[in-house]
Amino acid sequence: MISNRVLLFQLSLLFLPCFFKFVSPFSHKTPRLTPFNKQAFMISRNPDKVSSAPTISKDFKTHFYTQTLDHFNYGSESYETFEQKYVVNSRYWGGADSGYPIFAYLGAEAPLDDDLGFIGFLTDNAPYFHPLLVYIEHRYYGDSRPFGSLKEVIRNETRRGYFNSAQALADYAQVLLHVKKQFSAHVSPIIVVGGSYGGMLASWFRLKYPHIALGALASSAPILYFDNITPQNGYYSIVTEDFKEASKTCYQAIRKSWSEIDEVASKPNGLSILSRRFNTCSKLKSSGELKDYLETIYTAAAQYNRPPNYPVTTVCGGIDGAPKGTDTLGRIYAGIVSYTGEMQCFDMNEFNVPDDTSAGWQWQTCSEMVMPIGRGEKDTMFQAAPFDLHQFIKECTNYYGVPPRPHWITTYYGGHDIKLSLNRFGSNIMFSNGLRDPYSSAGVLEDLSESVLAITTSNGSHCLDIYPSTDTDPDWLIMQRNIEVDIIQGWIQNYHKDRLSRF
Amino acid sequence: MISNRVLLFQLSLLFLPCFFKFVSPFSHKTPRLTPFNKQAFMISRNPDKVSSAPTISKDFKTHFYTQTLDHFNYGSESYETFEQKYVVNSRYWGGADSGYPIFAYLGAEAPLDDDLGFIGFLTDNAPYFHPLLVYIEHRYYGDSRPFGSLKEVIRNETRRGYFNSAQALADYAQVLLHVKKQFSAHVSPIIVVGGSYGGMLASWFRLKYPHIALGALASSAPILYFDNITPQNGYYSIVTEDFKEASKTCYQAIRKSWSEIDEVASKPNGLSILSRRFNTCSKLKSSGELKDYLETIYTAAAQYNRPPNYPVTTVCGGIDGAPKGTDTLGRIYAGIVSYTGEMQCFDMNEFNVPDDTSAGWQWQTCSEMVMPIGRGEKDTMFQAAPFDLHQFIKECTNYYGVPPRPHWITTYYGGHDIKLSLNRFGSNIMFSNGLRDPYSSAGVLEDLSESVLAITTSNGSHCLDIYPSTDTDPDWLIMQRNIEVDIIQGWIQNYHKDRLSRF
Repeated sequence: MISNRVLLFQLSLLFLPCFFKFVSPFSHKTPRLTPFNKQAFMISRNPDKVSSAPTISKDFKTHFYTQTLDHFNYGSESYETFEQKYVVNSRYWGGADSGYPIFAYLGAEAPLDDDLGFIGFLTDNAPYFHPLLVYIEHRYYGDSRPFGSLKEVIRNETRRGYFNSAQALADYAQVLLHVKKQFSAHVSPIIVVGGSYGGMLASWFRLKYPHIALGALASSAPILYFDNITPQNGYYSIVTEDFKEASKTCYQAIRKSWSEIDEVASKPNGLSILSRRFNTCSKLKSSGELKDYLETIYTAAAQYNRPPNYPVTTVCGGIDGAPKGTDTLGRIYAGIVSYTGEMQCFDMNEFNVPDDTSAGWQWQTCSEMVMPIGRGEKDTMFQAAPFDLHQFIKECTNYYGVPPRPHWITTYYGGHDIKLSLNRFGSNIMFSNGLRDPYSSAGVLEDLSESVLAITTSNGSHCLDIYPSTDTDPDWLIMQRNIEVDIIQGWIQNYHKDRLSRF
Repeated sequence: MISNRVLLFQLSLLFLPCFFKFVSPFSHKTPRLTPFNKQAFMISRNPDKVSSAPTISKDFKTHFYTQTLDHFNYGSESYETFEQKYVVNSRYWGGADSGYPIFAYLGAEAPLDDDLGFIGFLTDNAPYFHPLLVYIEHRYYGDSRPFGSLKEVIRNETRRGYFNSAQALADYAQVLLHVKKQFSAHVSPIIVVGGSYGGMLASWFRLKYPHIALGALASSAPILYFDNITPQNGYYSIVTEDFKEASKTCYQAIRKSWSEIDEVASKPNGLSILSRRFNTCSKLKSSGELKDYLETIYTAAAQYNRPPNYPVTTVCGGIDGAPKGTDTLGRIYAGIVSYTGEMQCFDMNEFNVPDDTSAGWQWQTCSEMVMPIGRGEKDTMFQAAPFDLHQFIKECTNYYGVPPRPHWITTYYGGHDIKLSLNRFGSNIMFSNGLRDPYSSAGVLEDLSESVLAITTSNGSHCLDIYPSTDTDPDWLIMQRNIEVDIIQGWIQNYHKDRLSRF
């Protein structure tokens, strides 16, 4: 049985977004994290790229669109509106008359501003496509809040009701039509781009609004992690594979560490011993606290296991590189230190600080985005933590007062037998996945038709293709992005050919 | 300026459903109408067909599904449910194991029971396809009412809010998945069929839920009568063409009758004269009352201008066949009599009796289904009655307290540049239109792609192809239905080929 705390922790943990930036939300609370971030999570260690963010921002103009609160209801209350943030960068825009495209980033479960500088795919390819760049914030996140603070809204049984993916897609439709009008861009095709949850939204947007988006690049979108299409343990199996591939001894050390932690914890003063050995900032209250922390490190390392540093290799370097004779717990600690850099102490609650974004995403997972991610006995390098739908429904219902709708996503968007559904329907979607990303277990990994395509890279990580390019990008990554660019180019060419052939 | 009365009358009039059965809703009020219906509007004058309705009903089993009130909201109130009616006929069902199809009729703006016996396409082709037949009632109509009487609900600003097409499509998705489960019909492809508004729903359902419906037959679906895609006067232009084609003198008589009616009306005792000449049951209150009545007759005759009787020919037979020397008004009266048969008197409010269905449809048109249907000066055989969106919004807002959303249908479903949108997206939709049907002006009349097809017949009328076949069906109608059957057969074959090729 998973405790409520663990469950909710998992919920907010397990959908790490494309751009996992501990530094900005947490830096004021945990300044010690800075080196940790710099080493493992910053988009790029190239100082030019990091410092270029302020330069970029000059071209990004923020707007607000008066958005319909409820697109699917005509009750008087649903006529309320809110101000939705979107950002336009017209620096590269080739102009409406020639039908230059619009590239639209569909925001996910984060404030838009946090992501702006990191959607490299849009700006990096802008000199080639001359697109208008549009970035739209997801309702309820960041500054696009229908009602005050997100945390308060989540507590309100009525107000949080409008916070879901179908409404978000309809928002994007409205904003994009508005932007097209504003820029007289009637003949400009729109390509939508998103990553992770935003990647799901991008692919679904193309499916639901093909008259608005010509095509979609859905990076690391685990659209098959619903309704048991994908085996529960898909996510953790890949985390496990990543570690096993990096080093078999590292994998074995992690695998046996959990029972050793439990064993020490069960001794008299066991938690004190563990606290000392892992240099925790405050004394552990349970072994679970430490295990959750370690699990977070491992899953994040695997999900963002990207060049040039490959965090999994870094962790394993610590574990394997510990002096001969170091015991398992000592190796585990060495792995953490290798990953984060030396710290005065380790804060076990570092990843657990509730913020608006995690509160929002937790609501989304407890209402419609029910992803049954779990693991069984000995089928991964972790201890068992099966996902129990019945229990999940109970806990969400206790917490929010209303039950989740675990079958809604597949009802509205599909997913079962996806190749059978889409091999003769739909077009112009790219599902890109790095196979080292645990979420790729629920991604579309084979072409569904001639133009609903899977682009995979063996060594890629979560959302890697849409990150800004850097001087250290490996060839396979450069090639992947080139393929994506070529395909989008083909969509646009076909579109204009079709359009002009009608006159 | 169109008065509110006229406007709302137009609203409820102008979307005559597939099966226009004056006899059932009105018979107790206006028994005189019986011959009128029998002659002009009954599905078939073949007595066998008419009497076969009770035989059919034995095979039709009524069920209720506990439906989610609001699919797009997770507020506590939207968790309410209602009982949605659906009917299953398994008499022809070939069984789930062999993947025999499911044919689903998507209900429109009418109680389902009224339509059951009239969806000939499903039962007529059942011996060939061995399908499970499913008929689903549209929310808020008939017995599928979330809250008490429809008229009361329409007055309630909150409760009527859930009454819209997107919610209705989601209902159909849920019911169909439920039926598939109940019948273990996991490998049975679903073909959805609908006519008129129901035809729109069928085509939109295939576009929005391709993972649930393999294909759609959308009969007489004017999906392009939104947002000025189609010229306002498309509808009345075809009514005019129908009359002109039947008889030029008839058309001319109608065309000049309006000003003559106005002229008589403006005389002293003019309304008494008109009342006498048109044998009205009670004295006319305005010439508009008479003109609305005549307009209804003409538009209905044109919309349901079907074999073997062709009501337009019947009306024109009366007009042209009046004794030599009969003046225009006399000819017009003769046309009415020819159409309806001899009556003791004519009730000008006959088509104006508000019932649940028209109250429901009026709400739908005043919220999202905003079809700008009008006509200008001298561009049809009618007097000018332009559609003024500004005025329309004002009147709907006055009436309901909330404004319509006239751009929502094209935002959610598309419509502009439909060929450009769909020629490389989507599949397996047939748009069938009879070109004598005034609504065909806003139908899809050319193939959009290799499998999004237009099936037109020069002489067809509203929804004619999905009516029950009769012994008097002309060859072109038989041929049209055969083509539709062949195409559906092709969809199903491809589906099973694709499905089996994956094992």
